[in-house]
Amino acid sequence: MSGPVRSGVPEHGRLPKYYAVKAQLSELLDELGEGGLLPTERDLAVRYGVARETLRQALRELLLEGRLRRRGRGTVVAGSKLEQPLSLASYTEGVRRQGLSPGRRLVALDRFPADADLGARIGAAAGDPVWHMERVLTADDERVGLESTYLPVARAPRLDEEFDPDSSFYSYLQERLGIIVGGATERIETVLATPREALLIGTPPALPMLLLQRTSRDQHGEPLERARLLYRGDRFSFTAELAPQG
Amino acid sequence: MSGPVRSGVPEHGRLPKYYAVKAQLSELLDELGEGGLLPTERDLAVRYGVARETLRQALRELLLEGRLRRRGRGTVVAGSKLEQPLSLASYTEGVRRQGLSPGRRLVALDRFPADADLGARIGAAAGDPVWHMERVLTADDERVGLESTYLPVARAPRLDEEFDPDSSFYSYLQERLGIIVGGATERIETVLATPREALLIGTPPALPMLLLQRTSRDQHGEPLERARLLYRGDRFSFTAELAPQG
Repeated sequence: MSGPVRSGVPEHGRLPKYYAVKAQLSELLDELGEGGLLPTERDLAVRYGVARETLRQALRELLLEGRLRRRGRGTVVAGSKLEQPLSLASYTEGVRRQGLSPGRRLVALDRFPADADLGARIGAAAGDPVWHMERVLTADDERVGLESTYLPVARAPRLDEEFDPDSSFYSYLQERLGIIVGGATERIETVLATPREALLIGTPPALPMLLLQRTSRDQHGEPLERARLLYRGDRFSFTAELAPQG
Repeated sequence: MSGPVRSGVPEHGRLPKYYAVKAQLSELLDELGEGGLLPTERDLAVRYGVARETLRQALRELLLEGRLRRRGRGTVVAGSKLEQPLSLASYTEGVRRQGLSPGRRLVALDRFPADADLGARIGAAAGDPVWHMERVLTADDERVGLESTYLPVARAPRLDEEFDPDSSFYSYLQERLGIIVGGATERIETVLATPREALLIGTPPALPMLLLQRTSRDQHGEPLERARLLYRGDRFSFTAELAPQG
């Protein structure tokens, strides 16, 4: 944050050694600027007079936080996190607004019978067929997230034939089927990537992610869709406008 | 999420051993139920036929994710994450609604001259005095978050004498000073706790946290306050209502 923030130093004054190195590295990253190449681990350990393992712990945190990125065999200073609006606006719009080129790649599209719980959330009876569509989200060809959508097959019987997976799902619902997303409830939390998710998104396993779970309604207030949106925690932030209490 | 979600198994089928143990542990936690005491590491390693280090990696992730909690020298099954509304409603209300007893403990209250950037955000000139108030947030006496608030001293000249730190700051502004928070922009992301924050909140260092950075306006739309709200990522989720696109 801009503006003064208390530093990481505990009041008892015993600052972990790795954290002191992390603070020094952080200044170095500011000097190098976005895209700047980090010196080797060996050079950095010598420069700061610490053991390689201590240096690695500091680098690991800077990577998890999105201050650094691996590029080929080197490590470079990362740009700031993407800022997406917390809204029903599509992923595409949000990424474009930041001058990046958005994309989506289909991982899986299958159908299965709803259980009672999922059915209740999306307006299907237990046993009714449900689409599950899973897509990897990209920004400038970098994989940054994973999106799973659950929709009753009855809502979009020809989804598998009609829908271009590299386009906006909500636009498809509206333009082909006259279904408008009329509102949603979204839960946000931080979770660790599973090995499968890490592989699909190309992150280190157990990277902190932002998980958004959405239950949406159509323009008539009827249950519509359930979505599980997983974004790299080192690459994304979300911004919300808060209204005064009624 | 309820409803079917793809498991953590990568398509190539090579499931990391620690993750297989984590999945088995996860079932065990469901059987034990909230508050249930976990068997010892030694017993678990024998039960699942893995090395202690493999078992520990699985336990570490379950702790970071909030599925497990340390209690005294043992480890117990955690309850579900607290759900706070993403709104200007006070922390107090949100926690009470979940049947817990909220509290706040003052860590620091000091004043310092604003720099140009902070000043612009809160409606102060560079050099104007600014309050910085830092409080630890508790729920049923457990420390769960850390809140830093920045406000021009001119807005609340007697804050240090008048305000009870274990009460709602927005209620104080409204009831004593006639200032109503008329809206805010909030940025949400995941960050790692610094050593100081981990010590204040009582978490393991580098625990993934949810960081909310708020810039608020008063009832006339004038810049008012800047807040940095840090919540344990293993204990909190936030819920937002999304309106249709205009």
